Amino acid sequence: MAYTPSTYDPYDFANRRHIGPSPAEMAEMLKVVGAPTLEALIDETVPKSIRQSGPLSWAPLAEHELLAKLRGVAAKNRVMTSLIGQGYYGTVTPPAIQRNILENPAWYTAYTPYQPEIAQGRLEALLNFQTMVADLTGLPVANASLLDEATAAAEAMTMAERSAKSKAKAFFVDENLHPQTIGVIRTRALPLGIEVIVGAPDTLVPEQVFGAIFQYPGTYGHVRDFTALIDKLHAAKAIAVVATDLLALCLLKEPGAMGADIAVGSSQRFGVPMGYGGPHAAFMATRDELKRSMPGRIVGVSVDARGNKAYRLSLQTREQHIRREKATSNVCTAQALLAVMASFYAVFHGPVGLRAIAERVHFNAVRLRDALLNAGADVSPAAFFDTITVKVGVGQQGIMAAARHRGLNLRKVGRDRVGISVDELTNDDVIARVLDAFGITEPAPETTELGFPETMLRTSDYLTHPVFHMNRAESEMMRYMRRLSDRDLALDRAMIPLGSCTMKLNAAAEMMPITWPAFNALHPFAPRNQAEGYAEVVEDLTDKLCEITGYDAFSMQPNSGAQGEYAGLMTIRAWHRARGEGERNICLIPISAHGTNPASAHMAGMQVVVVKSAPNGDIDLEDFAEKAEAAGDRLAACMITYPSTHGVFEETVKAVCEITHQYGGQVYIDGANMNAMVGLVRPGEVGGDVSHLNLHKTFAIPHGGGGPGMGPIGVKAHLAPFLPGDPETGEGPVSAAPFGSASILLISWAYCLMMGGAGLTQATRVAILNANYIASSLRAEYPILFMGNRGRVAHECILDTRDFAEVGVSVDDIAKRLVDSGFHAPTMSFPVAGTLMVEPTESETKAELDRFIAALHSIRQEIRDVAEGRIAAEESPLHFAPHTVEDLVADWTRAYPREQGCFPPGSFRVDKYWPPVGRVDNVYGDRNLICTCPPVEAYAAE
Amino acid sequence: MAYTPSTYDPYDFANRRHIGPSPAEMAEMLKVVGAPTLEALIDETVPKSIRQSGPLSWAPLAEHELLAKLRGVAAKNRVMTSLIGQGYYGTVTPPAIQRNILENPAWYTAYTPYQPEIAQGRLEALLNFQTMVADLTGLPVANASLLDEATAAAEAMTMAERSAKSKAKAFFVDENLHPQTIGVIRTRALPLGIEVIVGAPDTLVPEQVFGAIFQYPGTYGHVRDFTALIDKLHAAKAIAVVATDLLALCLLKEPGAMGADIAVGSSQRFGVPMGYGGPHAAFMATRDELKRSMPGRIVGVSVDARGNKAYRLSLQTREQHIRREKATSNVCTAQALLAVMASFYAVFHGPVGLRAIAERVHFNAVRLRDALLNAGADVSPAAFFDTITVKVGVGQQGIMAAARHRGLNLRKVGRDRVGISVDELTNDDVIARVLDAFGITEPAPETTELGFPETMLRTSDYLTHPVFHMNRAESEMMRYMRRLSDRDLALDRAMIPLGSCTMKLNAAAEMMPITWPAFNALHPFAPRNQAEGYAEVVEDLTDKLCEITGYDAFSMQPNSGAQGEYAGLMTIRAWHRARGEGERNICLIPISAHGTNPASAHMAGMQVVVVKSAPNGDIDLEDFAEKAEAAGDRLAACMITYPSTHGVFEETVKAVCEITHQYGGQVYIDGANMNAMVGLVRPGEVGGDVSHLNLHKTFAIPHGGGGPGMGPIGVKAHLAPFLPGDPETGEGPVSAAPFGSASILLISWAYCLMMGGAGLTQATRVAILNANYIASSLRAEYPILFMGNRGRVAHECILDTRDFAEVGVSVDDIAKRLVDSGFHAPTMSFPVAGTLMVEPTESETKAELDRFIAALHSIRQEIRDVAEGRIAAEESPLHFAPHTVEDLVADWTRAYPREQGCFPPGSFRVDKYWPPVGRVDNVYGDRNLICTCPPVEAYAAE
Repeated sequence: MAYTPSTYDPYDFANRRHIGPSPAEMAEMLKVVGAPTLEALIDETVPKSIRQSGPLSWAPLAEHELLAKLRGVAAKNRVMTSLIGQGYYGTVTPPAIQRNILENPAWYTAYTPYQPEIAQGRLEALLNFQTMVADLTGLPVANASLLDEATAAAEAMTMAERSAKSKAKAFFVDENLHPQTIGVIRTRALPLGIEVIVGAPDTLVPEQVFGAIFQYPGTYGHVRDFTALIDKLHAAKAIAVVATDLLALCLLKEPGAMGADIAVGSSQRFGVPMGYGGPHAAFMATRDELKRSMPGRIVGVSVDARGNKAYRLSLQTREQHIRREKATSNVCTAQALLAVMASFYAVFHGPVGLRAIAERVHFNAVRLRDALLNAGADVSPAAFFDTITVKVGVGQQGIMAAARHRGLNLRKVGRDRVGISVDELTNDDVIARVLDAFGITEPAPETTELGFPETMLRTSDYLTHPVFHMNRAESEMMRYMRRLSDRDLALDRAMIPLGSCTMKLNAAAEMMPITWPAFNALHPFAPRNQAEGYAEVVEDLTDKLCEITGYDAFSMQPNSGAQGEYAGLMTIRAWHRARGEGERNICLIPISAHGTNPASAHMAGMQVVVVKSAPNGDIDLEDFAEKAEAAGDRLAACMITYPSTHGVFEETVKAVCEITHQYGGQVYIDGANMNAMVGLVRPGEVGGDVSHLNLHKTFAIPHGGGGPGMGPIGVKAHLAPFLPGDPETGEGPVSAAPFGSASILLISWAYCLMMGGAGLTQATRVAILNANYIASSLRAEYPILFMGNRGRVAHECILDTRDFAEVGVSVDDIAKRLVDSGFHAPTMSFPVAGTLMVEPTESETKAELDRFIAALHSIRQEIRDVAEGRIAAEESPLHFAPHTVEDLVADWTRAYPREQGCFPPGSFRVDKYWPPVGRVDNVYGDRNLICTCPPVEAYAAE
Repeated sequence: MAYTPSTYDPYDFANRRHIGPSPAEMAEMLKVVGAPTLEALIDETVPKSIRQSGPLSWAPLAEHELLAKLRGVAAKNRVMTSLIGQGYYGTVTPPAIQRNILENPAWYTAYTPYQPEIAQGRLEALLNFQTMVADLTGLPVANASLLDEATAAAEAMTMAERSAKSKAKAFFVDENLHPQTIGVIRTRALPLGIEVIVGAPDTLVPEQVFGAIFQYPGTYGHVRDFTALIDKLHAAKAIAVVATDLLALCLLKEPGAMGADIAVGSSQRFGVPMGYGGPHAAFMATRDELKRSMPGRIVGVSVDARGNKAYRLSLQTREQHIRREKATSNVCTAQALLAVMASFYAVFHGPVGLRAIAERVHFNAVRLRDALLNAGADVSPAAFFDTITVKVGVGQQGIMAAARHRGLNLRKVGRDRVGISVDELTNDDVIARVLDAFGITEPAPETTELGFPETMLRTSDYLTHPVFHMNRAESEMMRYMRRLSDRDLALDRAMIPLGSCTMKLNAAAEMMPITWPAFNALHPFAPRNQAEGYAEVVEDLTDKLCEITGYDAFSMQPNSGAQGEYAGLMTIRAWHRARGEGERNICLIPISAHGTNPASAHMAGMQVVVVKSAPNGDIDLEDFAEKAEAAGDRLAACMITYPSTHGVFEETVKAVCEITHQYGGQVYIDGANMNAMVGLVRPGEVGGDVSHLNLHKTFAIPHGGGGPGMGPIGVKAHLAPFLPGDPETGEGPVSAAPFGSASILLISWAYCLMMGGAGLTQATRVAILNANYIASSLRAEYPILFMGNRGRVAHECILDTRDFAEVGVSVDDIAKRLVDSGFHAPTMSFPVAGTLMVEPTESETKAELDRFIAALHSIRQEIRDVAEGRIAAEESPLHFAPHTVEDLVADWTRAYPREQGCFPPGSFRVDKYWPPVGRVDNVYGDRNLICTCPPVEAYAAE
């Protein structure tokens, strides 16, 4: 019998799993929006003139097809034992941490903890990280992570410049720094006019510099005491920076004890897989006097409305706080998820365990050295922690090959030496194989002789806080991780409608490969022929991103959007210079831009000229043309965001690009809002020359509670030769690793492969539908700021809540009241103070949008109750939000019922999220800055 | 400089991660217990006379060493595409389900949902499973899973015997049943005196049988309508059982529509990996009239104290409810975790998706058939769903080999046919490879012609409940899974001190390999040379279990402890018969035994003679000797539990064994309490001839919210030849798969490898310490029932709470009040009614034990308040426990403060677990039995 099979495809990832609304829901939503079809809505929203020239081409894969393909690609990587060192080391990721943090959506789907009431768990974990860094470096204030060691070192340089009393313009760089760190420092110094002096520490002339950075232990293994040099620097009013290694500091004298002002480094070897370059959490610690100059985020301790301990981000440097065109840092992303992992590694092992691991590493290095010496080898340095180099002369290639033949990667040092770095995974078998590669068959002797002078032994305690002295049974660890994650509200429980942050689904299938050893155990400087799987990933992802953006080449180096901006502008800068137009240094930036834009421009050595907005929020084209003309042959670039930060597709974009080109400038299109364009508009076709893409927004990398991120840049062909250089060998890198945080590229690639070109395009359409559905559902209650000519918003909308201030209801009140309904607040006061910017993304279902809309309707009614005098603002639930269980346990004396306070519309009943603290006191926190774990009594009440 | 490195081993899994108390904590605990050293405590607890002859031998592996070793073992398995069928099929496990259920300790560490207030999440998921099974089979009542399809079929046979009005003694078995199902049915029928008639359905003589079972579709693919045969069976007052396939029922007429009384089958292909045999959830559904005869657990809908909807287990058949020596079933374990996965697969796809998958499978099978027919092959059957057989004559071996050469396993059917089962993973490439193996290069034609008669098409709806019509975006699915798991209290949040259930740590490292494709994608009947990794696992685990137990051989077949008991007794039975002593059929069992013991004995055809207890709870040796003598040459066995279910190492155990042997009987030692013996006492040295081990208790397999389990049996050499047969080919199997739920053997193996012999032994000591610490800390408040001669308990202790009933406080009140402190209740009323049995296991830290002790002290004070008249029992917090948020939101009219009610000692403050419902009404639930999802209105309040 002939039968008509269903046309339903259960494996259609894009339309069944990733995109939230079902076709039936979309039909209902279109009615509310008032558009006959989705395509019609898009036509009203996205100007015809900028639509892209053809559809995206590739077919989608089902989830199981993707995983099968990835297994094939993984098999093309060859996981060897890398003893290369140079900032990346083998490490044991405790399985309890892998499973309960890295593989747990409660941790990885969380947003940056700007709303402290719903982020107490990860704030505590990050505070543990800060305490760990502060303790180990011996410096009292640490931040909550930076992107990688190399950029942390560059940040330290600019921080030193800001802080030093010396008026010198040079920065001294120890030649024993990792080459990639030197490279990034050079890149960063160049446009800022900082002279970089690279040399042996003893060649330092303190009076010539505002600061100096030393590596300790050095990249080739040297361990030495920098106290005397640091004293000299201080005498010259210069700043001393030490790039260091946390594991070494478990055994070695800490930089703080040498007088260092700033310490930086990577926490990778604290349980975070190498991942072919990342992501890992870099760190920075400093003296108390310098803390307010420190870049990045710092978690601090404050109190909530009831006076209970509560954590929060203090000294925030999120994008809109960055000091715009005067900035010497544009850092806003951190590596929260990896910092959390590293902090748990320290909690898991405690000081006794960390010291034991450090000893194990050190004595294995000593044994190796001894065995080599016994065999007559020429080994240096005399004092070392984990790394030695062996002079092998013309035998270098032979030794390297012999090692590879035994499954080992050694480091090529110069032309006649090899470097060997011992790590946590190095065992007798590895040592025997290394020796065998040198033709030594004698086993390495046992020893208890230190490989460095006794004077270098650490004498101070560290990790004395009780959190590092938990019982450490896995049951207790697992429960601690669970308790922390339960305090937080992440995407695994509710929509996070953050404007411009694109909190879309991070699908399980996309996340799986990142914990496969074939991807995460590779050293970034392993020979490329061991990473053919990765090569395929990078190549195919590049092809797809080129097709999506209309660009011709990509660099995967930048580890964040802001770093992408910087890298893109540096590319433009280099192009102008190569054409003999090095004097071009003016960058036009609209007033509505993200704060990172002018900061990045300044860092790239450009002078920012601000362009006005027209009343409708668009770029004021006339003002733009005038300023471009005024800049003339000094015009380097313009930086625009498209669709604009106001959430509108400006029709003028092509004109802006044309004007810029007319005066010889290059167009940087910020890709922050790319989620409104994929498949519909190509920045490269609109007129852009460079863009960065926030892979952690548009391309499904989870936010990880505040990082990792990836901000690769795409460029037109003429700029391709000027993309960032190779960190391992070349000049001009912007990151420590050749492909940035390579392992998470897998997530974006998996996303592209499963969505297919048509699925990605449909996702864009639905993102626009969802935003317009929210705007249409709320505009009677909340004015929508900035709509396009035809009354449409793009993928986000701005709710104007400014008028409510008149009756005593702040945008903060609304944000906290949303917590009572089980929602993360939208973006507050960006791009317009006193407003809320909502971006639902395509992944949210109609039911979830309706829940959000119901919550905001109810809040509007509560505001009306205040405005119309039925309740005083300071007695209303808005004022007391968010409500906690403590409010219920205490006697209820409020002017409204418990039910209204705790279960407003939108709130789940049985499954309600209860914030662990009430509203957090920001003023108290800023006045009483505590950035390490509070004493144990503070925990007693938990 | 010479340096003294730390002796701390950070990779010591046994002592740092698995065992809870640190050495310092143990020292404190020993003071409380009043023993000078741990060894001294053990000497006081475990009689010298039974201590084992030597230590366990093997060295431990660190977690990362284990994972490296497992990767090596995994590489020895060869994952081919198995088209063998026979009850096991390739399936796509949705990554969202793998990550959020199977890899999530909130799901896998939960206990069986006997305490409904803390188990609403998994109860809802299991209710979804029941609804799914009931809908698809067309029978109104389904249970919450059984162990495997073969044992479900055997259970259906005995259920039919119990239920049928026919007095016939034979059971008819369709020859088209899977061979392993026939094997298990035969094994089960033999001792019960049921005659099994195997034949073609049309040879059935209904008057000769009390029931019949048909397979639909048949094992060789046949699809036929059994309505007429079933009518005839009914006319003869016999019961009709249909073994069926859920995916086929998405397209085919359902057994209920044919009049079937019972349907059984496996839900494996609903997203549960094959795992070389398991675990998977089997199902059983029946007519409403027979529901009270159905084995296994059934989730029902009741109300809580506030009248809100609440789920609970109804018609419970847990071990102590089993009808002891009259039982024809001893089922108590289910496959909860796998049933949850299968239910989510149905939620994930919904009826439209399931039908599409069924169509895809079916039409691929039709295409394959057509291509084979076009090439002139002899293909049967005429009507099929997914399986065809091809007559290949003497070419059978050649075709099988050609297929293997192309990465495919086909099924060998008889001597001249091969079977091919199409599954969800079969795609064009697989079809082309199959055809290629037959020498056919023509591609399979497209078709929309059904491969079975139109009359066999299903016409009824299924999965109409809203839960199967969720939006199905992954965000929504993930949040639903999270909400359900948040409702439950599992080991990832708190100790679960269940006596005799050994809720120890299920370490992340142990769980990781089970989701590796190299282990979980193997078909149980794949050629053994493709499973060399598994062979190594089974062999080495067997060696270690032999060394631990003192036995000489093991069978890994039994999927639960109760099945192990049965298999062990059947082994004894076969041995007696082989020696010509088939008349031995008396089994001596102490009165204190688990209910499963007499049930298993009855199922093995033995007559149970109950032995008295002495006043101290020990076996009454005099009574034992008398009854053994009375049995004389009819004595088959004794079944004892050691240490006893009273938690005491009885000194008399050797005498009991000697007496049994003296009269020619065999000794079965129940391994339920093996956690008190590993490394200290070998049952095989004490005198046991057979034991089962609960790998899901003693050997770290998680309870999965009520399964999976594994109950392998160890035997002395003389019994080895009589162990269960091979299900694929032989006679006498007890399970469907050769190694039972093979994939979870990895967990126990990993546990043994990481613990090492010394670590396992230390775990036993600490389990005993923890139990004695609880007993010592509580005995002033709660009398401890049954202690050894020297005042020690073994690994668990019984708190006597019977006296409190006099003042109106029940054991239930105490159990529920513990929920307020964030604990799962201990085992209630077993082995003594009105008591609580507490087993802390070695994995709990002193802090967690102290939290539990504090909670029980506080409860004791609340009981005293009642006893001494300060508060009436029915007004006390004990009566209202557990407290919910609803209590706080409502007006508080209780006689005690909110604070006391909600935050008793032991309770966390910020991280408090709030039960989603108040105390569940058991009586209501039993009177109003609803076993499928309630209507949508019931969900409205959530």
